[in-house]
Amino acid sequence: MPELRKDPVLGRWVIISTERAKRPKDFKFKPEKKSVSPKECPFCPGNESATPPEIIAYRESNSKSNTPDWSLRVISNKFPALRIEGDLNRRGEGLYDRMNGIGAHEVIIETQDHSKDLADLDLNSFENVIYAYQQRILDLKKDKRLRYVMIFKNFGSAAGASLEHSHSQLIATPVIPKRVMEEMDGAKRYFEYRGRCIFCDIVVQETKNRKRLISENNSFILICPFAPRFPFETWVLPRNHVSNFEDASKEELHDLASILKESLTRLKKALNTPPYNYIIHTTPITLKGIEFYHYHLEIIPVLTHIAGFEWGTGFYINPTAPEESASYLKNIL
Amino acid sequence: MPELRKDPVLGRWVIISTERAKRPKDFKFKPEKKSVSPKECPFCPGNESATPPEIIAYRESNSKSNTPDWSLRVISNKFPALRIEGDLNRRGEGLYDRMNGIGAHEVIIETQDHSKDLADLDLNSFENVIYAYQQRILDLKKDKRLRYVMIFKNFGSAAGASLEHSHSQLIATPVIPKRVMEEMDGAKRYFEYRGRCIFCDIVVQETKNRKRLISENNSFILICPFAPRFPFETWVLPRNHVSNFEDASKEELHDLASILKESLTRLKKALNTPPYNYIIHTTPITLKGIEFYHYHLEIIPVLTHIAGFEWGTGFYINPTAPEESASYLKNIL
Repeated sequence: MPELRKDPVLGRWVIISTERAKRPKDFKFKPEKKSVSPKECPFCPGNESATPPEIIAYRESNSKSNTPDWSLRVISNKFPALRIEGDLNRRGEGLYDRMNGIGAHEVIIETQDHSKDLADLDLNSFENVIYAYQQRILDLKKDKRLRYVMIFKNFGSAAGASLEHSHSQLIATPVIPKRVMEEMDGAKRYFEYRGRCIFCDIVVQETKNRKRLISENNSFILICPFAPRFPFETWVLPRNHVSNFEDASKEELHDLASILKESLTRLKKALNTPPYNYIIHTTPITLKGIEFYHYHLEIIPVLTHIAGFEWGTGFYINPTAPEESASYLKNIL
Repeated sequence: MPELRKDPVLGRWVIISTERAKRPKDFKFKPEKKSVSPKECPFCPGNESATPPEIIAYRESNSKSNTPDWSLRVISNKFPALRIEGDLNRRGEGLYDRMNGIGAHEVIIETQDHSKDLADLDLNSFENVIYAYQQRILDLKKDKRLRYVMIFKNFGSAAGASLEHSHSQLIATPVIPKRVMEEMDGAKRYFEYRGRCIFCDIVVQETKNRKRLISENNSFILICPFAPRFPFETWVLPRNHVSNFEDASKEELHDLASILKESLTRLKKALNTPPYNYIIHTTPITLKGIEFYHYHLEIIPVLTHIAGFEWGTGFYINPTAPEESASYLKNIL
């Protein structure tokens, strides 16, 4: 019998489809081979002039901006979805609303090494990626036109990556995104009813019953969520209540790097380097110390297609139960 | 300068990205070739025993059920996402909610001819497909456990179709889907404020300014919506206010078949037979004669990938302005 499960934050139903049950081996596919040579890659060292100038970089002391001695660079996206210059100029067209595409669109180049995936970086380099995320949010927070900073990674062309050199992205928007509002609203309703943060409660329940728990460290747990949209979808949840990612402590960021690296390694082993997206879900930068919302990270491997039913309903049909995904990911290392 | 546009019903923002502007030729790709022989196809005539028994069929008079003399068949999905037998058995697990996957999952086999796509059917056969949709909703409406009937088509494997023989699907759910609730809520807010149906107002505005209008007939208009998620996304909107698709008149269904066939033909010519999804957006079957909501059909070609930014925000980055898509689709025939 298929089962309907409700995501407790968003109220989104998913169908855990037993008829179409799929195990890890049903999804395995050949990983994409890197095909661009470092000479032609704009993100490789020596090609700094092929990108917009760097916003920040982690470099050898005394090395100059936009020269090769870096370990991480943050640059503006050369083809930005939103632009930092100008004003919003909100205006109507009959019943419709529009405004200028003001915002920021940045690229975090995670390593010099063209051949490495993020999961392959040593823990130190991985930590630098996480620090850079936080540093950029703290800086963009000063721009009063912006309301939200979304940090995400697309890995593999099926997950929307257009360049193969390992990188993440950041888009800052002048409006709070719909999806974020929905999460905030759902979490607020729970808090009003129960007087507790729903994410804190999820951490307690998942740590106790353990059937969807994959791994844990001092500051985080790694789980398959109760109502996942996709096979092998995983979430990284902080144990302690922190509403804004930019307010996480240095120790927490260290532990986040460690569990995220581990989770990507587990995915890679389990599914033979699948394409994936991860997204940091955090409180809008205009809010601080919110008691009902708790930042976290969602990782979704791209193994299935979104089809008409999903588009029309917002339901998802997931052929792999999270308990099964979790057990597999737990035992893969 | 990129532009942010808001969907007036859902409040969903999309970014019309001028930096990444794409024209139709940037999307053209090789159509998928059919590779299964009619002998091995469970939807081909002669193979009726390979599918669950038919629920309804349009057949030669005097021909028996589940024999080859049909022009259209509706069957239960052999691997249903939801099952018709049983009860909901709503239950909790700590803070989570679940219930049995009760519902209906049916397949509409649109033609005997394995080689034909839906766009290739003659108008009579196309009309039968639309009639069958309505007939099935009217029947499923009698089941008091069900709240919504979603009709959709996945064409091409990238759009989620697992069989190549031309077919659509129907899934009836025991809860009103989240996405449908959001549309109903948005339309209701507009009605409360302005006293008119927002879809009626969209028809008036688009018919008047014409820059996103692709085509029209007595009962429908075909447009690119103001804030489309995807390049070449199109909507078919009834001119007259009808909240429930199942209450559309025979004449309207005839005109719907005609404009939908035309829209699929335009897409096919413009983009070289792209994969696509279409979805009928209609009022829940438990409601009737709603004055603020208006059924319509949305068609989305699968030309781009959903990536981390879209998953995290609910925003979409669309590299083709709808005015450009509309002008191209208008002039292709």
